[in-house]
Amino acid sequence: MTDTLIKVDLSKSPLENENIHNRWHPDIPMACWVNPGDDFILETFDWTGGFIKNNDSADDVRDIDLTTVHYLSGPVGVKGAEPGDLLVVDLLDIGAKPDSLWGFNGFFSKKNGGGFLTENFPEAQKSIWDFKGMFTSSRHIPGVNFAGLIHPGLIGCLPDKKMLDLWNEREQQLIDTNPTGGLANPPSPGTAHMGKLTGEAKAKAAAEGARTVPPREHGGNCDIKDLSRGAKVFFPVYVDGAGLSVGDLHFSQGDGEITFCGAIEMAGWVHMKVTLIKGGMAKYGIKNPIFKPSVITPAYNDYLIFEGISVDEAGKQYYLDINVAYRQACLNAIEYLKKFGYSGAQAYSILGTAPVQGHISGVVDVPNACATLWLPTQIFDFDINPNASGPIKHIDGKINMPLSHDLK
Amino acid sequence: MTDTLIKVDLSKSPLENENIHNRWHPDIPMACWVNPGDDFILETFDWTGGFIKNNDSADDVRDIDLTTVHYLSGPVGVKGAEPGDLLVVDLLDIGAKPDSLWGFNGFFSKKNGGGFLTENFPEAQKSIWDFKGMFTSSRHIPGVNFAGLIHPGLIGCLPDKKMLDLWNEREQQLIDTNPTGGLANPPSPGTAHMGKLTGEAKAKAAAEGARTVPPREHGGNCDIKDLSRGAKVFFPVYVDGAGLSVGDLHFSQGDGEITFCGAIEMAGWVHMKVTLIKGGMAKYGIKNPIFKPSVITPAYNDYLIFEGISVDEAGKQYYLDINVAYRQACLNAIEYLKKFGYSGAQAYSILGTAPVQGHISGVVDVPNACATLWLPTQIFDFDINPNASGPIKHIDGKINMPLSHDLK
Amino acid sequence: MTDTLIKVDLSKSPLENENIHNRWHPDIPMACWVNPGDDFILETFDWTGGFIKNNDSADDVRDIDLTTVHYLSGPVGVKGAEPGDLLVVDLLDIGAKPDSLWGFNGFFSKKNGGGFLTENFPEAQKSIWDFKGMFTSSRHIPGVNFAGLIHPGLIGCLPDKKMLDLWNEREQQLIDTNPTGGLANPPSPGTAHMGKLTGEAKAKAAAEGARTVPPREHGGNCDIKDLSRGAKVFFPVYVDGAGLSVGDLHFSQGDGEITFCGAIEMAGWVHMKVTLIKGGMAKYGIKNPIFKPSVITPAYNDYLIFEGISVDEAGKQYYLDINVAYRQACLNAIEYLKKFGYSGAQAYSILGTAPVQGHISGVVDVPNACATLWLPTQIFDFDINPNASGPIKHIDGKINMPLSHDLK
Amino acid sequence: MTDTLIKVDLSKSPLENENIHNRWHPDIPMACWVNPGDDFILETFDWTGGFIKNNDSADDVRDIDLTTVHYLSGPVGVKGAEPGDLLVVDLLDIGAKPDSLWGFNGFFSKKNGGGFLTENFPEAQKSIWDFKGMFTSSRHIPGVNFAGLIHPGLIGCLPDKKMLDLWNEREQQLIDTNPTGGLANPPSPGTAHMGKLTGEAKAKAAAEGARTVPPREHGGNCDIKDLSRGAKVFFPVYVDGAGLSVGDLHFSQGDGEITFCGAIEMAGWVHMKVTLIKGGMAKYGIKNPIFKPSVITPAYNDYLIFEGISVDEAGKQYYLDINVAYRQACLNAIEYLKKFGYSGAQAYSILGTAPVQGHISGVVDVPNACATLWLPTQIFDFDINPNASGPIKHIDGKINMPLSHDLK
Repeated sequence: MTDTLIKVDLSKSPLENENIHNRWHPDIPMACWVNPGDDFILETFDWTGGFIKNNDSADDVRDIDLTTVHYLSGPVGVKGAEPGDLLVVDLLDIGAKPDSLWGFNGFFSKKNGGGFLTENFPEAQKSIWDFKGMFTSSRHIPGVNFAGLIHPGLIGCLPDKKMLDLWNEREQQLIDTNPTGGLANPPSPGTAHMGKLTGEAKAKAAAEGARTVPPREHGGNCDIKDLSRGAKVFFPVYVDGAGLSVGDLHFSQGDGEITFCGAIEMAGWVHMKVTLIKGGMAKYGIKNPIFKPSVITPAYNDYLIFEGISVDEAGKQYYLDINVAYRQACLNAIEYLKKFGYSGAQAYSILGTAPVQGHISGVVDVPNACATLWLPTQIFDFDINPNASGPIKHIDGKINMPLSHDLK
Repeated sequence: MTDTLIKVDLSKSPLENENIHNRWHPDIPMACWVNPGDDFILETFDWTGGFIKNNDSADDVRDIDLTTVHYLSGPVGVKGAEPGDLLVVDLLDIGAKPDSLWGFNGFFSKKNGGGFLTENFPEAQKSIWDFKGMFTSSRHIPGVNFAGLIHPGLIGCLPDKKMLDLWNEREQQLIDTNPTGGLANPPSPGTAHMGKLTGEAKAKAAAEGARTVPPREHGGNCDIKDLSRGAKVFFPVYVDGAGLSVGDLHFSQGDGEITFCGAIEMAGWVHMKVTLIKGGMAKYGIKNPIFKPSVITPAYNDYLIFEGISVDEAGKQYYLDINVAYRQACLNAIEYLKKFGYSGAQAYSILGTAPVQGHISGVVDVPNACATLWLPTQIFDFDINPNASGPIKHIDGKINMPLSHDLK
Repeated sequence: MTDTLIKVDLSKSPLENENIHNRWHPDIPMACWVNPGDDFILETFDWTGGFIKNNDSADDVRDIDLTTVHYLSGPVGVKGAEPGDLLVVDLLDIGAKPDSLWGFNGFFSKKNGGGFLTENFPEAQKSIWDFKGMFTSSRHIPGVNFAGLIHPGLIGCLPDKKMLDLWNEREQQLIDTNPTGGLANPPSPGTAHMGKLTGEAKAKAAAEGARTVPPREHGGNCDIKDLSRGAKVFFPVYVDGAGLSVGDLHFSQGDGEITFCGAIEMAGWVHMKVTLIKGGMAKYGIKNPIFKPSVITPAYNDYLIFEGISVDEAGKQYYLDINVAYRQACLNAIEYLKKFGYSGAQAYSILGTAPVQGHISGVVDVPNACATLWLPTQIFDFDINPNASGPIKHIDGKINMPLSHDLK
Repeated sequence: MTDTLIKVDLSKSPLENENIHNRWHPDIPMACWVNPGDDFILETFDWTGGFIKNNDSADDVRDIDLTTVHYLSGPVGVKGAEPGDLLVVDLLDIGAKPDSLWGFNGFFSKKNGGGFLTENFPEAQKSIWDFKGMFTSSRHIPGVNFAGLIHPGLIGCLPDKKMLDLWNEREQQLIDTNPTGGLANPPSPGTAHMGKLTGEAKAKAAAEGARTVPPREHGGNCDIKDLSRGAKVFFPVYVDGAGLSVGDLHFSQGDGEITFCGAIEMAGWVHMKVTLIKGGMAKYGIKNPIFKPSVITPAYNDYLIFEGISVDEAGKQYYLDINVAYRQACLNAIEYLKKFGYSGAQAYSILGTAPVQGHISGVVDVPNACATLWLPTQIFDFDINPNASGPIKHIDGKINMPLSHDLK
C-alpha cells in the first residue's frame, strides 16, 4: 500500500505543520525523500489553510490576509535529481479529504485582490460546493452539476538561489513602476511559513522567499485545469533533490481561474509517482514545464462558444489585447446566462468553476484580438441552447450567493 | 441538388467578379437572395484573391499589398431578416476547389504586416500544403501530415451605418495614438472592391468601408479554427436582409493564427443553410456571435502541452499579459521541435497550421498570466514525446522553407 | 491533381462498365495499375447498380434480384504486391457522386433476403435519405438528422484460387445442411459480371466466382461502419498485384447493418492511397484485415444504451447467443422509440442507419449473453432521455415509410 | 458526509455478514432503507468473497466452488418504489477498498466454468493487478498499464416471485436439453447465503433462489464495462422497495468479459444516488435496464481493430454466428500480440482486462457474421502498430502467468 508521506490535520493550523511551506526558497529543507520510481501520497490544506469556511457568509473572503497563501505540502526530495534534470511526475490520482467533502469559490473585494472581472463584481462573494463522488453542485447556484476535473492549482520544484533572485528582481522592477498598484507581491516575511526552518535560517529565508502567487519558470501556481489527475508533467529541476511541492487543490476550474478565489478550492491529497530524465532540460530545450493531459477527464463535448474582441464594454479599442478579448467573452457569456435567470455573480461563478475552456482564437488581425469562451451545455439541468422560442427563465432568483460589503 | 449561388473563376481577378467585395459597408448590394430554411453553396477566392502562388519562392508573401484583402463572397440577402434578429448559419460542409487542391502558409515581413512572432521571424517565408482527401502535408515541412479542421476565417453580416461609424471612429482613435505604427487600418479606397457598386456610390462607400482585417461585433475575421464545417453559428443582424458574406477559407489552423499569412489558406466553397431567430439579439443578450462546434472534427487527443508565462525572452516582467504568455508558450514549443531537427521557421509554421490549441490558463495570479499551447502528437510521423533516451533528430534539415529577404 | 482511375456513369448499367465486377475470382483482370505510394480515386455504383430508385415506393426493394449484387469498382493492381504482403490502404476521403446526393435504406421481404429482424418486419419497406453537406435526413422519417460516418461496406483484395475454393467448399457444406434455407449463396453465373473477362474465360470464372455477400478472410463485405473515411486498413494479399476492389458505399450505418437493405446506400467515390508491408501477413500473424479508425468521425458521445439478453421475445432461453441478445437490444430500443411516436419500421430504420454502436457486452455468464445497443441522443431534434414527466409524442405519425406487400 | 450503509470486513467471511446475499429471491429482507434523492455508499466483497488471493498460484482459480458466487451487498430498499417504476441509479463514484488495492483476472479450467476461449486455454491461470491511483498494471503481464474503467459487474433489483419462477423455469428447460452440459445453473441451496433470512424462511428461499450468474431482465450480472462510475442507470422495479443489490466490482474489463474469472475483480465500494420514475416501465416500454454512460471514462481513442468472421479456426462455416466471429477476432488479436513477445495467455488476459471494445459489426451478410475487437494501443509501453520494419519483440518471455494444472 502506498505511503502517505505528508499528512495534514484540518483541525489544526498549517503553521503547526513543518511539512508545509508558503514561500519558495532553496533553503527550505526537504520534508521527506523518495527514490525515482516511487509512488506516494501527499495530503494538502486548501490554499488558505482553512481560513475560508463552509458557511453562508462571504466575510472570510472579504477579510482574508492574502500574504498568508498558499500552504504547500513538501518539498519532497528525489534522490539523484540534479539541476538540469526533468522531474517526471505522474499524477496517479487526486481527491478531497474524506472529512472535507466540499470546496469554495468566490471573488475577492476589489480592495483585496480583486479578480478578472473585478470592475464588474467589486465586492466579496462566495459559493460553497458539495462533492458527491465525482460530481459537485452548490447550494448557492442552482441548476448546475458537473464532474470534477480535479487538479493541483500549484505544483513545482524549488528554485535555486539564482532563479529566486531573478524572480524577486524582475517583479520588484514591475512593482517599482507603480508601488501601490498591487502589480506584484514582494517577499512578505511576517506571514512566511518556511517548513522545518527555524530561527535565523528561517528569518533569512523568509525575507527572501518568493511569494507563491504567480506561475513562474518552475511551474508553480499555474492554475491549469488540464494539469489534472492522470496527467504526466515534466518539471525543470534547479536544486539537488528537486524539492517538489504541491497544494492549492481544485475540484474543478474554468480556464483562467477568472474568479481568483479561486477555482473550487479544497483540501485533499495527491497520489503521484516520480521519475527522472537526466539532463532533460538541455536535451529538450525546456524552460517552463511541459505536460501531457490525462486520459480520464470529463467528456463534455457539447459547447456553446462565446466570442470576445479587444474592445471593452465602454467601446474603447485596444491593440491585440487577449485579456480584453477574453474579458469580453466572459461578459458576453454572463449576459447570456442571465437570460435564464441567473444573477451575474452566479453566472460569473459558473465560468470560474465549471470545466470552461478559454481559447486564444486570433492574435494577429489588427487591432482586435479574438478570444473564445467554451461553455459546456451538459452541466446544466436544462437546455441553454438558443432557439426560436426564446430563453426560458429556469432559475427563479430565490437563491443567492452570499455577498459581504466592504467595511468602511 | 443544392444551388451554387456565387461562383468564382480562379483564373480571373476577383475584381472582375461583382459578387465579391473586400470592405464592409451597408451600401454593398446583395449579391443574391435566399429564404430562411434554404441551403446553398458559395464559392470563394483565397483571401488574397490568388496573389500567393503555388511555387517555391516567398517573394509574393513579401511583396503583397495588404490593402487588397480579404476577398469575400456575398453579401447574401436573407428574406425577412431584420436588425436585431439572429441569423443561424449551419456550415453543412466546406471544401477546396477541385482545381486548386493546395494552400499556403507564411509569415509576412516585419515591414509588411509581420505576425505574432515577427521579432523572431522578421522576414517573409512561405510553405505550400497539398491536400489529399481530408489530409494535408507540405513539401517544405517534412514529417507532419494531418486532417483538416476546415473553416472560414472570415464570415459575418453587413454592419449598419451606425456600427460602421463606430468601428471607423474607435479604430481611428487608436491609430491616432501612433499614426505610423500600424496599429489599425483605416479605410483604403484605392483598392476597395465593393461588389456591384459602381461610380459615385462605389466611391462613397469605398471611402467609408471598413477594412476586413479585424474581427468585430458582427464576427468578421475571427479566424476561429473551431468555427469549422459542421458548426452552427448565430450571427447578429444589423441590416434588412442580413447580408451574409464569407471568405478566407482555411484548410487548417492553430489557435491564434499566429503566422498571420495565415492558416493554410485556400480557395474553395462553403455549403450552408440559414434560418432566423427573430429578435434573438435582445432575447439572448447577444453582442458578438456565438456558436456550437462541429460534431465532425479531427479527434487528435494526445497532446504535448507547453506553458508560457508573461515574462518575455529578455526577462522582462509584464503584468498579467496573455499575449506575452502565449508568445512564450509558442517559443517554448519551437525550441522543443528544433531538437527533432526542424528549423525554427518550420516549427513556427507547424504551430500556425496544425490544429494546435491555445488556452488562456491563468489570468489572475499577479503578475504572471499563464497560457498553454497544446501540440497534437499524432500529426507527426515520429514520436515527439520526451523520454529518458533523449530526442532523436528525425528531420535532417535538407528541406527548407522558402525565404525572401526584404528588398533594400 | 489526383487521377480518377475508374469512372462510373450512373445513367448506364454497370454491366456496360468493364471496370466493374460483382463476383470474386482471381482471373478477373486488373482494371488498372498503380504504384505503392500512389493516391487515386475510384468511382462506384451503389451496391445494386442503380436498381433502387429515389421514389416513394418499396416495390424495387421487394422485387430486386439479389444475385446481381454487389457492383464493385476494380480490381486495382498494385505493382510489386505479392501473396503474403499486407496492402495498406489509407481511405483519404469518401463522398457521394455530385449528381446523386441521396441514399436508400430498407428491409427486404422475408421471402427475398429478409434482415436481422425479419420476423418482426417481414415485408419490403424503404426510406430515402437526402445528403446536405456532411449531414443527412429522410423525408420518410421525421425528427432525425445526423452527420455521415461515410464508409465502404465492401472492400478487399482478390482471393487466389486456393482461397476461393475454400470459400466455395465450406459455404456449400453449410448450404447442404438445408438446401432451401438460404443459409448461403453459391456461385450464380447467370448474373455474374466479371469485369474485362469475356467469352470462355468469363464463363469459367463466373461458374466459380464467389458471391460478394459475406465478409471473408480478405475483408470483403464487412459492413463495418468504423472502416470509414480517414481509416487505415491492412489487407492480406493473395495474388500478384493484390487486386483491390471497393463498392457498396454507405453514407451512414449502425453496427450490424441490421436492416440489410442496407445502410444508407449510395453511389460515390473513394480517394485512397496504397502502400505495402512486404511479407506482413506472416510477420504480424494476419488472417483477416486489421485497421485503425479515422481521426475524423462524428463525435456523438451522449448515448442511451439498451441491454438485451439471450432470451427471445417468446421467452425462450438460448445458450450464450449474442445474436439473440443483440436482437433483443434492438427490439427494446424500437419499443422505446415508439413511445415518442415513431412507427416500428421508422425506429428500425434509425437503428440501421444512424451511427449506432452494438457491443458484445457479456459472453460468459451462462446461459445469457448480454449485448448492448448504443443510441446517440444528439441525432434527434428532441430530447429522448427518460425523465419523470414521461415521454412526449413528438412524432405525430402522419409521415410513413413506403411499404410494398409481397406479391401473391 | 455520505453514509456508508453497508460495510464489509475483508478479513471475515461474507457468510457472516447479513447484508450480503448470493442468490436472487424476493423474500430476502432489505438490508437497509433509503429515500428517493438520497446518496449513500455500499461496500462490497469481491465476487468470490475473498477466495482468490493475491499470490502467484492459480490453484485457487482452479479449485473454486462456483456455486458460492456472487456475494452481493444489499438489498437496499427505496421508500415509495413500487412494481412498474424505474429506479434511477446515479453511480457517483466507485473504488477499491483502501486495504485491498489489487485485483485478479484468470481463466477457469475447462472442467470448472471455462471461458470464452476455453478450448484454446483449457487450464486455470491467474494474473494479479495492482492499483496505483486510477491506473493498474500486473506483475504477471509486462508492458501494459491503463486507467481503470471501474464498474460493477453485477447490479439490479430483486425479482418478484413471478419473475423468479420464469427464470427458473426457462433455465431448467435449457438444462434439461443436456443435463450434464453446464448450460445453466439451477438453484443450489447448499451454498446459498440469503442475507438476513434464517431457518425455514431461508431454507425455502435458498431452494428457489436464482443463481446470480446470468444477466436477466432486471440487469444483474451484465458485466457491461460502460456501466461505469459516472453512469446513470434506469432499472425495472418488481417489488415494493425495489431492493437494489450490487457487487462483483471490476477495476477494468474488456467487452465480453471473455476471460470469465473475470475482469480485474476487486473488493470495493459504490457511492450512488437513487431516484424514481413512477410507472416508468410502461411509460417508456422498458423490459431490460437502460443506461447513459459516464462523462468520465478513459479517453483511449487510438485503436487497432481486429476483424473476425463466423468461420472457426478449423475452417468450419457457421451461419451468422456472432459468438464465433468474436472468438475469431479475439484469436486474431492474440496471434498478433504474440508477435511482440507475449504468451497466448498474457495476450488473452489483456483482452479480458483492458478497455477493449467488442462490436457487432455485421449480422446480415449470409453466412458470415462479422465482429470486431478494438484494442487500445495507448495502454502499451511500446508501439504495437504494424509498419514496414516489422514487429519488435519487446517482451522477452521471462515473466509468466501462474498456471495450475487440473488435478487428476
